[in-house]
Amino acid sequence: MRQYEMFEIRLTGEAPRGSEAAAAPEAVFTLNGKEKRVRGFYVGEGVYKVRFYPGEAGVCSWKIAPALQEGGREISLSGALEGTETCETAGSSSHGMVRVNGLHFACEDGTRYQPFGTTVYALIHQDRKLVDQTFETLAGAPFNKIRFCVFPKHYDYNHNEPAYFAFEKTGDRFDVNRPCQVFWEELERRIGQLDEMGIQGDLILFHPYDRWGFAQLTHEECMTYLSYLVRRLAAFPNLWWSLANEYDLMAHFERGWWNDFARFLHENDPYGHLLSNHNCLPYWDFHDPYTTHCCIQDTCVNRVGRLQREYGKPVVFDEVCYEGNIEHSWGNISAFEMAHRFWMAHILGGYCTHGETYLNEEEILWWAKGGVLHGESPARIAFLRKIMEELPGDPDVLPGRWGSVDPEEIHKRAQEPKTGDVWADGLASLPLERLYRFIDKEGTVQSHCGQEVYLRYYGHQCCGKGMLELPEELEYDVEVIDIWEMTRTVIRTGVSGKVTFPLPGKEGIAVIARRR
Amino acid sequence: MRQYEMFEIRLTGEAPRGSEAAAAPEAVFTLNGKEKRVRGFYVGEGVYKVRFYPGEAGVCSWKIAPALQEGGREISLSGALEGTETCETAGSSSHGMVRVNGLHFACEDGTRYQPFGTTVYALIHQDRKLVDQTFETLAGAPFNKIRFCVFPKHYDYNHNEPAYFAFEKTGDRFDVNRPCQVFWEELERRIGQLDEMGIQGDLILFHPYDRWGFAQLTHEECMTYLSYLVRRLAAFPNLWWSLANEYDLMAHFERGWWNDFARFLHENDPYGHLLSNHNCLPYWDFHDPYTTHCCIQDTCVNRVGRLQREYGKPVVFDEVCYEGNIEHSWGNISAFEMAHRFWMAHILGGYCTHGETYLNEEEILWWAKGGVLHGESPARIAFLRKIMEELPGDPDVLPGRWGSVDPEEIHKRAQEPKTGDVWADGLASLPLERLYRFIDKEGTVQSHCGQEVYLRYYGHQCCGKGMLELPEELEYDVEVIDIWEMTRTVIRTGVSGKVTFPLPGKEGIAVIARRR
Repeated sequence: MRQYEMFEIRLTGEAPRGSEAAAAPEAVFTLNGKEKRVRGFYVGEGVYKVRFYPGEAGVCSWKIAPALQEGGREISLSGALEGTETCETAGSSSHGMVRVNGLHFACEDGTRYQPFGTTVYALIHQDRKLVDQTFETLAGAPFNKIRFCVFPKHYDYNHNEPAYFAFEKTGDRFDVNRPCQVFWEELERRIGQLDEMGIQGDLILFHPYDRWGFAQLTHEECMTYLSYLVRRLAAFPNLWWSLANEYDLMAHFERGWWNDFARFLHENDPYGHLLSNHNCLPYWDFHDPYTTHCCIQDTCVNRVGRLQREYGKPVVFDEVCYEGNIEHSWGNISAFEMAHRFWMAHILGGYCTHGETYLNEEEILWWAKGGVLHGESPARIAFLRKIMEELPGDPDVLPGRWGSVDPEEIHKRAQEPKTGDVWADGLASLPLERLYRFIDKEGTVQSHCGQEVYLRYYGHQCCGKGMLELPEELEYDVEVIDIWEMTRTVIRTGVSGKVTFPLPGKEGIAVIARRR
Repeated sequence: MRQYEMFEIRLTGEAPRGSEAAAAPEAVFTLNGKEKRVRGFYVGEGVYKVRFYPGEAGVCSWKIAPALQEGGREISLSGALEGTETCETAGSSSHGMVRVNGLHFACEDGTRYQPFGTTVYALIHQDRKLVDQTFETLAGAPFNKIRFCVFPKHYDYNHNEPAYFAFEKTGDRFDVNRPCQVFWEELERRIGQLDEMGIQGDLILFHPYDRWGFAQLTHEECMTYLSYLVRRLAAFPNLWWSLANEYDLMAHFERGWWNDFARFLHENDPYGHLLSNHNCLPYWDFHDPYTTHCCIQDTCVNRVGRLQREYGKPVVFDEVCYEGNIEHSWGNISAFEMAHRFWMAHILGGYCTHGETYLNEEEILWWAKGGVLHGESPARIAFLRKIMEELPGDPDVLPGRWGSVDPEEIHKRAQEPKTGDVWADGLASLPLERLYRFIDKEGTVQSHCGQEVYLRYYGHQCCGKGMLELPEELEYDVEVIDIWEMTRTVIRTGVSGKVTFPLPGKEGIAVIARRR
């Protein structure tokens, strides 16, 4: 047993006569005196497994109930029902699960974790050769998180039939009580592979793009599925629970179900994996107590600060349209625009997720099927990642001109008497949507890591000169960054206070001042 | 006397003892039996003038009152107090004043007029050499309308003191009763020069960027000024009245004054020049009965159709930020973005106005002072203008997917019971500003000239394939246009119905299908 690595006990017993999904060995693990109740799962052929994730090194013992209740009868289990092991200290490349750390993320050992995600929805529903190719691509790509689905995808450019599904069929209907072992083993193998590559799996549990019936499960079926999934997968260190892709488009699911799912996962996941829910139209309510971070489909990547204030949680723009050239407006932004959205979100201390939708004859679009990357944004995302990882900490938004202005607050003043100030009255009189556009346009994109680093991003503004207001009593070196050309130029050294400098007058320019 | 050309009668008399601005000869012109009452103005040195603009050819006679009332006494006038002239038919290059034609514009002789404007606020407040240079630049530029101010500009990059102002000083205060003749003569000379170049002068009557007191005139002073201005300038064919630049930032003017100004100009301008008012924050109320068209400062150039429906008037985006590289977000958009905003507005049957703010050592920025153009958008605007002028008529918006959807209407449904349709309910539940962003992103930008021409603009969408739905019974040739490279490529000939074609997968692509 080793800290931050899944530990597994194999048991044997009679096969369940009823639900193979519901049959759950009961275990208690005691690590350094701290108890955790853990439930196992059935893997077929009379084999049951119990998995444990040790968050610290030390001494670990366990005790597994010698029998489990299934369909009103008892199944006796054989194997290492009790034991004690030394849990070794984690290796240097292993940092533990990713947790929320204020408005940011960190691994259990305290290492900063900044998600630079990508999206391959139907990653595991392609033939093995293609999935292997996707993993080869990932090995050379800048991504440390990937969004992918348990259930296969039916949509434009996604018409292939997967070789296997999460469940077997009973009659002509997929039966959540009969997990398809080949599927789950392959899923686990891929999650393990991601872990070796340092990539978090942001696992999407439901989604609407379906022709097989997975978007029409009953509440009870959903719970059976989630119970099996969480018992089977929760000991993987590199998983996040994404309740859905576009939860709000799932017409057959009542809204309250999502809260049930979140609570159920929270109560049944012994390790507290990150959890959120992804929207098409209305955002998921990130105030939900079991939701750990904001997972947003939207393009307003400049609003990180506002969202952080509203929800008090890390802000991940998990879908900001995809770099590509398909006919849908969500899948044809330029590589520059994708790189820009990453810079905007990350400079402000938020996070962004990539996806790619380039037409090709084989209809293998990265966003759903993986394969190879064709786009020009990944190189820029790698460049950004390197710069962000050099920072001494996570950046926090620095209110600039309009930076701390809340359009909603201004808009409320429309009902109040005029102040006589043309600007204040003018802003208050604007339609809210116009007010947002105005303030978004005027907003200065700035952040800082304490007094160590100050960052500014000019986005679509083509400035010929720049300005930073640095502490008077400290000295900084200022670097100008071209996010597209991927150049870094030191423009000032040993400066303090209000500093001005020339800029190249084009889109995609960032400036970083580092304390000497 | 010639149709569409200013006709002027010079009179002499004693100089006014009181207000030189208020002294107004009274005349009646009868052109082809139709009477127009026209008032003249004082030009100094005992000279008065009466000007008339003949909208048609024919026979014109006039009668001027032999004396005018001024400061409680009578001033006798000498000169051609009566007369008759043949009004010759206009020359082929002369099309008459620009009028509203439905949601578009046309000259009096029926010629289409599509404004392709630019902005040089303090055009006439620079030294002669610079103004001459500006006119040389205009001669080679694609602009047929220019926004410029009567009063000088005080602002960043605008600190020079003009040689003369619209009025002389009495004591240390500019006195609206004492027009500065050198100023008005120079203004007229420049308006005439613009007319020769086929350029409409969109004359800005007030603005807030002032250190001389012109933004703090009293209501009475404003009226004296406007009365003089309209009597003096209304016979120029190529003028539009723009009540202000950023009327809403003029803190010393009450809101009702603007309605007074509009009504006053309407009542005192015998020829009905186009009239509008330009905002910074809240739009002017384009429902105002004396306002002929929408003059908008905003960036939502894709909303031409919505604004046309709301106001029933032509939509001119007279300020959409400026191509340039200054520090202000309104003055540092890229040349591509400026070209894009022109294409977006014009394809939809609206209009756009250019401005340029490139830093240079002399601090001569085109937007305020003129000089030479440094940017790359004017060549693209010329290319667009050529294409738009080739069209058989003014394009009208073609509702596409979301094209006829009004976010405000959808938003109202938030209070109503759910329909059970996830899309309808989801959209209705969105905050209005999000709804606008969503629909703006999804909106298809399409227009048509009857069944003759169909236009589509993909804007920031990088599509690898395109589609048009053309009438089944007619045949079209389809051309793909790269707005930045300024290339036109025929991609399909003789096609009908639903047509698909490859596109280059980059920003700034338009498609035009012309009936064979």
